[in-house]
Amino acid sequence: MNKKTGKTIGILGGMGPEATLALYKLIIDNTPAKKDQDHIHVIINSNPAIPDRTLHIVYGQESPLPLLKEGALLLEKAGAQMILIPCNTAHYFVPEISKAIKIPILNMLDITCKYIALQAKKLPEYNGASKIPVGILATTGTIKTALYQNYLEKQNLEYIIPTEQEQESIVMEAIYGKRGVKAGYHKEPAQLLKQAAILLIDRGAKFIIAGCTEVPLVLTHKMVSVPLVNSMEVVAKEAIRVAKGNK
Amino acid sequence: MNKKTGKTIGILGGMGPEATLALYKLIIDNTPAKKDQDHIHVIINSNPAIPDRTLHIVYGQESPLPLLKEGALLLEKAGAQMILIPCNTAHYFVPEISKAIKIPILNMLDITCKYIALQAKKLPEYNGASKIPVGILATTGTIKTALYQNYLEKQNLEYIIPTEQEQESIVMEAIYGKRGVKAGYHKEPAQLLKQAAILLIDRGAKFIIAGCTEVPLVLTHKMVSVPLVNSMEVVAKEAIRVAKGNK
Repeated sequence: MNKKTGKTIGILGGMGPEATLALYKLIIDNTPAKKDQDHIHVIINSNPAIPDRTLHIVYGQESPLPLLKEGALLLEKAGAQMILIPCNTAHYFVPEISKAIKIPILNMLDITCKYIALQAKKLPEYNGASKIPVGILATTGTIKTALYQNYLEKQNLEYIIPTEQEQESIVMEAIYGKRGVKAGYHKEPAQLLKQAAILLIDRGAKFIIAGCTEVPLVLTHKMVSVPLVNSMEVVAKEAIRVAKGNK
Repeated sequence: MNKKTGKTIGILGGMGPEATLALYKLIIDNTPAKKDQDHIHVIINSNPAIPDRTLHIVYGQESPLPLLKEGALLLEKAGAQMILIPCNTAHYFVPEISKAIKIPILNMLDITCKYIALQAKKLPEYNGASKIPVGILATTGTIKTALYQNYLEKQNLEYIIPTEQEQESIVMEAIYGKRGVKAGYHKEPAQLLKQAAILLIDRGAKFIIAGCTEVPLVLTHKMVSVPLVNSMEVVAKEAIRVAKGNK
């Protein structure tokens, strides 16, 4: 803790590096600053060697857990006072990672669903009785582990997910495909994700969660007719609030 | 050292955070990658509390050296195998920081001037006898300590710097002014820096060094009629080469 910069934020990243970069940018852009010294101390451990989360969850390949724990410990030892993980799917492992460290992990999914619950109450169709449906664009790993589904239900919200076929041929193609975000492409995956969002909106979604950190790298607010909730943006603002000690 | 990702790059940053972000982006964008695991392990220590380098060098205010040493040690302990410093002025302290650690610091200024020397030989006016003049856009701290001037002379290049008055009212205003880069502005400082570059080119500069990490955040290649050398881009490419073990 530094009296000037507040609490130190740790970022357990590299999943992928572009998402880590985007989170770091969101923290910088959302911190009111007139000079360097107004910014927050951020320590980033961007280890792209962490095995793919979805490949482990869905296909039983190598577990990312050992490197996730190691990376979190590194941040704690380096002086981080809280940890953000710019990978939605990796949140499946949060309970296990938490056991390895003493500092808190700001749970991006939990915080995002709480934020949506607040926003949902402002909708004209909100009446307290019927649940507001929320569309989820995420990796198959995140969908299969029902991470967002559970947090949305906890907030008394309904969820809408793509069909299995849409999930693989549209969403996963946009993220992991040969011309996907993780391969460094932007244009083609943006069109695919827009299509996936439209399908969910047609089925009633009043919000779309950009629930994989690669999604908001290419899908923008303008491309979606309902509010697009960038989980990284929500957690970045929460982390700044905590770091600066604001209530 | 990870067989997949190569050597780990440490970034001693926060001076300012935007420059650190830009260097991290340059590393990601210049690493050939088709999936997360093709990227390099990067550890970033972005500590914006490090006292201003120019304020210390020129006006004798608090020294940044203790926090620079502490930050470099943190990176070494965390497993970094080399250190990059995305702040030109901070390079004044490199000899002292190096004494505190065992891992190498890739000297951005030295590497940049070597790169320019190679490029200068490709100019039609190069004849091996007369020295090619290089314009420097940097903070007053970097100019007064003659960091770039010395590295350019070592490479048998000539240097051109702004007059004292231009340095303060144009270059420093663009970086540190109320509507400068460090205050989060882009448009006004871009115009000021373009003006400063034109003055140097009029006096014969065949290259312009973007010798403060805030400069290339707003001044682009298109705005300058001679090659604009972004020291961060040069060092990012060199770090990738070293990390991947390429010759």
